[in-house]
Amino acid sequence: MTGLERFSINQMTVKQLSLPELADACAGLGIRNVGLWREPVRSYGLEATAALVRDAGLTVTTLCRGGFLTAVDPAQRAAALADNRRAVDEAAALGTDTLVLVSGGLPAGSRDLHGARERIADALAELGPYAERHGVRLAIEPLHPMYAADRCVVSTLAQALDLAERFPARQVGVTVDTYHIWWDDRAPGQIARAGAAGRIHTFQLADWTTPLPEGVLDGRGQIGDGAVDMREWRAYVETAGYTGPIEVELFNDGLWARDGREVLAETAARFVEHVME
Amino acid sequence: MTGLERFSINQMTVKQLSLPELADACAGLGIRNVGLWREPVRSYGLEATAALVRDAGLTVTTLCRGGFLTAVDPAQRAAALADNRRAVDEAAALGTDTLVLVSGGLPAGSRDLHGARERIADALAELGPYAERHGVRLAIEPLHPMYAADRCVVSTLAQALDLAERFPARQVGVTVDTYHIWWDDRAPGQIARAGAAGRIHTFQLADWTTPLPEGVLDGRGQIGDGAVDMREWRAYVETAGYTGPIEVELFNDGLWARDGREVLAETAARFVEHVME
Repeated sequence: MTGLERFSINQMTVKQLSLPELADACAGLGIRNVGLWREPVRSYGLEATAALVRDAGLTVTTLCRGGFLTAVDPAQRAAALADNRRAVDEAAALGTDTLVLVSGGLPAGSRDLHGARERIADALAELGPYAERHGVRLAIEPLHPMYAADRCVVSTLAQALDLAERFPARQVGVTVDTYHIWWDDRAPGQIARAGAAGRIHTFQLADWTTPLPEGVLDGRGQIGDGAVDMREWRAYVETAGYTGPIEVELFNDGLWARDGREVLAETAARFVEHVME
Repeated sequence: MTGLERFSINQMTVKQLSLPELADACAGLGIRNVGLWREPVRSYGLEATAALVRDAGLTVTTLCRGGFLTAVDPAQRAAALADNRRAVDEAAALGTDTLVLVSGGLPAGSRDLHGARERIADALAELGPYAERHGVRLAIEPLHPMYAADRCVVSTLAQALDLAERFPARQVGVTVDTYHIWWDDRAPGQIARAGAAGRIHTFQLADWTTPLPEGVLDGRGQIGDGAVDMREWRAYVETAGYTGPIEVELFNDGLWARDGREVLAETAARFVEHVME
């Protein structure tokens, strides 16, 4: 299939495939890039995964994910920082320069969004230099505001950039993911802001479909099925200077119930049709 | 119960109560204000409802709701405008000066948020003067971004004010509802903007609780159960000059399954505890 040079398949989109199955399916379709997740990588083995993708000629575009940096309790904070340093190490071992960060929600019983965001900044001050020493950039991912309480208090690109800009771009930037920002009329301007500073560390796609499922985690739509104009968002990041991989990351019970190779082929075709053509 | 002078119970919070039951329960608790919805008012009869609330000494703080103004099809647009003029008439008949507007989502197959927002502005240009002639103000309600596709393309107070400010404040203002804006770090500044222009036409409360239910419509939390600091938001609107009624509007399957009078008493007590004290 042509038009896939910049396509990257995030492993979660086809989590029913093992890593060797994913590598094999990518080879069959001419897919050169993958985004990986820490849990399946650990299950298969970090070194084994690194060898597998290297032998398959695959580029690892991102590792998902670090973060969850909003705890108040000192022991929990120390554990989170240690876990994020391990995530940096894993990213480096896999040969990717980008670690996606999901910042974390409000601690139980807290109503202090501002304080939680400041604790993220404190954590980044420790993690940024560590990541830089390992050749890894941290990519703060604003998550849709519907996750603000329980998953990520960073809800907009503007908030993510307000945090990132306290640090050098080689340490901290942002993840631009259509699923989380498509509704935001300020997002195009924030993409320009991010691009001008070299802070678009990864660009991810998912479509917005309704009704949302209970818990709102696993309803990310296949490209082309929903409300997001993919070409428009691609144009925003490209105008801002981003020419890197474009990762499709879908959490979708319907896709997960199907044959993974079929879903991968469909996703690649949708990418060509709705993003690149 | 003291501390209820500014409390208004939105009828949807206790939709299991008939209008006479609601009026009776309000009298028993010393509640002076209600927010009404068009459908139950129509079922009971517009004139009968107006007489009921008048005889009970209740003030109708808002009528919910007009809106759904994003259709492209001319016949659908004409029908929506006609329905909104009827909603204005109903508000006037009930003696309330505020009609809440939920703007509408994307038309089927559309991905054009900007165009949809412009069609809302076009409709307001027709409806604003009509409302003013009837002594009614339109209150654009930004809904949480999770409703942007299927219910309301106006997702932030800033967007709502961008629309409202094209018209006189006596015609068009905004609804400030904690459920929809609590995550937004720009919202306090936008409340100040709205207050300075006399455009806070109503202030509504619901708490944010997770996990969200399927469809994300009926998961609005009881005051005090969730992530929203109610006193903080009350301070924002009061600092901005708003001293009017504070309406509690909950859509919650759990509350609807309980005895309505018990839920009303609980809601009034939560209001005093978490908002006023």
